[in-house]
Amino acid sequence: MKVEEALRKISEEKPLVHHLTNYVSVSLVANTTLSTGALPVMAHAHEEVEEMVGLASALVVNIGTLDPYFIEAVLLAGRKANERGIPVVLDPVGAGATSFRTKTAERLLSELSIAAVCGNAGEVATLAGLAAEVRGVESLAGDPREAATRAAGSLGLPVAATGETDYVSDGEHTLAVSNGHSLMARVVGSGCASTAVVGCLATVGGAKAETVAHALGYFGRAGEVAAERAKEGGTFEPQLLDALAGLAGDPSGLDDALQVRDVTD
Amino acid sequence: MKVEEALRKISEEKPLVHHLTNYVSVSLVANTTLSTGALPVMAHAHEEVEEMVGLASALVVNIGTLDPYFIEAVLLAGRKANERGIPVVLDPVGAGATSFRTKTAERLLSELSIAAVCGNAGEVATLAGLAAEVRGVESLAGDPREAATRAAGSLGLPVAATGETDYVSDGEHTLAVSNGHSLMARVVGSGCASTAVVGCLATVGGAKAETVAHALGYFGRAGEVAAERAKEGGTFEPQLLDALAGLAGDPSGLDDALQVRDVTD
Amino acid sequence: MKVEEALRKISEEKPLVHHLTNYVSVSLVANTTLSTGALPVMAHAHEEVEEMVGLASALVVNIGTLDPYFIEAVLLAGRKANERGIPVVLDPVGAGATSFRTKTAERLLSELSIAAVCGNAGEVATLAGLAAEVRGVESLAGDPREAATRAAGSLGLPVAATGETDYVSDGEHTLAVSNGHSLMARVVGSGCASTAVVGCLATVGGAKAETVAHALGYFGRAGEVAAERAKEGGTFEPQLLDALAGLAGDPSGLDDALQVRDVTD
Repeated sequence: MKVEEALRKISEEKPLVHHLTNYVSVSLVANTTLSTGALPVMAHAHEEVEEMVGLASALVVNIGTLDPYFIEAVLLAGRKANERGIPVVLDPVGAGATSFRTKTAERLLSELSIAAVCGNAGEVATLAGLAAEVRGVESLAGDPREAATRAAGSLGLPVAATGETDYVSDGEHTLAVSNGHSLMARVVGSGCASTAVVGCLATVGGAKAETVAHALGYFGRAGEVAAERAKEGGTFEPQLLDALAGLAGDPSGLDDALQVRDVTD
Repeated sequence: MKVEEALRKISEEKPLVHHLTNYVSVSLVANTTLSTGALPVMAHAHEEVEEMVGLASALVVNIGTLDPYFIEAVLLAGRKANERGIPVVLDPVGAGATSFRTKTAERLLSELSIAAVCGNAGEVATLAGLAAEVRGVESLAGDPREAATRAAGSLGLPVAATGETDYVSDGEHTLAVSNGHSLMARVVGSGCASTAVVGCLATVGGAKAETVAHALGYFGRAGEVAAERAKEGGTFEPQLLDALAGLAGDPSGLDDALQVRDVTD
Repeated sequence: MKVEEALRKISEEKPLVHHLTNYVSVSLVANTTLSTGALPVMAHAHEEVEEMVGLASALVVNIGTLDPYFIEAVLLAGRKANERGIPVVLDPVGAGATSFRTKTAERLLSELSIAAVCGNAGEVATLAGLAAEVRGVESLAGDPREAATRAAGSLGLPVAATGETDYVSDGEHTLAVSNGHSLMARVVGSGCASTAVVGCLATVGGAKAETVAHALGYFGRAGEVAAERAKEGGTFEPQLLDALAGLAGDPSGLDDALQVRDVTD
């Protein structure tokens, strides 16, 4: 499905996207979801997390500020999502920085059926067993293309490694996404927001590599539009949300603006 | 009390408004409170929640991301607030979406003396025992007027059901508030923020239906002002805070700009 | 070290600053850290907090929404930071408002080696054993100069008491910082953000009184720049982040713009 068609469908159907996410960028993630036309919900109590997933069309898991209660909530929600057949998108924030994060990401990949993984180069390289440097939640070294390709191959699912150019691979094919702007790295949680967009698009198109690439392209295109009206990260963030909403409200021409290339070896 | 007078009194007295709220819109709720001239505080530890309520002039409870620890904090804070006679305003976020939320809202209404309830049409309809559709924290169906009237009647307290037009009823009289702008629905937490404004106004005027309607009218008027300087939800949010602060700093003419009508049958 | 040199070094080295902070202003704190050129991370799980501190160049502790789990995380992280010799900066948010906050601040000062304390006049006066009025997290009365001087003397470490003029004392010398703008008080968490900047600067210059004063001067200078492009608190916040980032990216002339005076008696 093309991204224009997907965004029109989202605006029409208003699918619920359930987020189990971190408390740093949670507001940006929620507003990003709303900007695409979908409805965000955050709910983590073990008493209700399965019932809330029962209303949702996708589950987005982001381990940016994890703890044991959170992990249990993810397992409860994830199993329910798997049972219902809705996509679960995982952002393994900080994998490679601490063993708790690395092991938690691995555990979720092992115990749940994850539809797609989106992380930065260092996080994805960590999951692929490659050398990586992750300082906190920032990737300092790592080849995103190799990371995505290798992780997709070993995990057997679509994996995106984001960076100046994003790479999305399903193990067989690899796509490069060149949309975006350097100011995106100057907003805390822009990576989390991009994963949220993947979750939103997955509600209508599933989480195939092409859909993931389209979602990242749409997000990057919004960044390009926003950058024209912003100076630094502070003024960029509200403009990014405006651009996401503007493109979702009138997606005409968006498919042509996407810079997605097949770069399979 | 007119809203101009109330805002002048708030700016002068700087009442403390204690929030037990969700982690998604908590920053917007705090900044909204500050914009009205009141002082926000968030404190949830069972060790201090009663002492903090002891300093406050109103308690605003929002169950948007509830869990058992949070509920216990609300009960501790709410009992203390009742003991002191300060108003407790409840936003039953997501009531109707999961039974945990519905039951928690009902439990709080049963165990605490709530001064006013503010929610969207679906949430309020749920509390009134009417048919409703709540997808996550969004109301998809439900007549706000009937919801407010019926809930106020059965609960015996002022109830606001927000929507394109907001309805506030105390069971005897029903007020309609027409201020507002469609961009308000494009910001996550605008409903939470409007309930916070009700809590702020309640510090000086109590939580009678008229005060609730004035608070929603002031909030809606700020939205109208903000919409002139914004494009989508991203740029609207900072403008909304500016407009709230601008009107609180110079409220002259605000009472005339309120579109509040008595629509009692 | 001058502030221009410090900011250049931060942009070059991208030090990790670990925050144990409140959930109200956490996004502002993270974006403030990123705006200085440093990298923020938030991690509180007892399973990982020590390992994450092991990667960090400073730890910033803010007790704005504390609870027992949080306090234990702070003790674990703080001991590790002490062991490694990286600075721990404490913002005693709400000390004086509840005994739980006052006692927690005192406990952290007693059990950990704190490099510097930054709070408002009422909070710092409380720690110095002086009379103070703290309504929630806002200081309503208290002389910041006396508070800083007395607290620094009794605690034996650099202490900043912020207000219209900020005062920083190490018990021997006292510095006054006059940069800033009244709009800063109209953004929830601006105090938390200023403490974050102290933590960022401490990664390269340690947490001596002069460094603390420079950090507050840089933050205040950013506020002056931002105020020219903003109306109220809502539009001020993104401009503040832009100004912090702009000054960090090109700090030329910043030392000359700082209004820091030695006001030692």
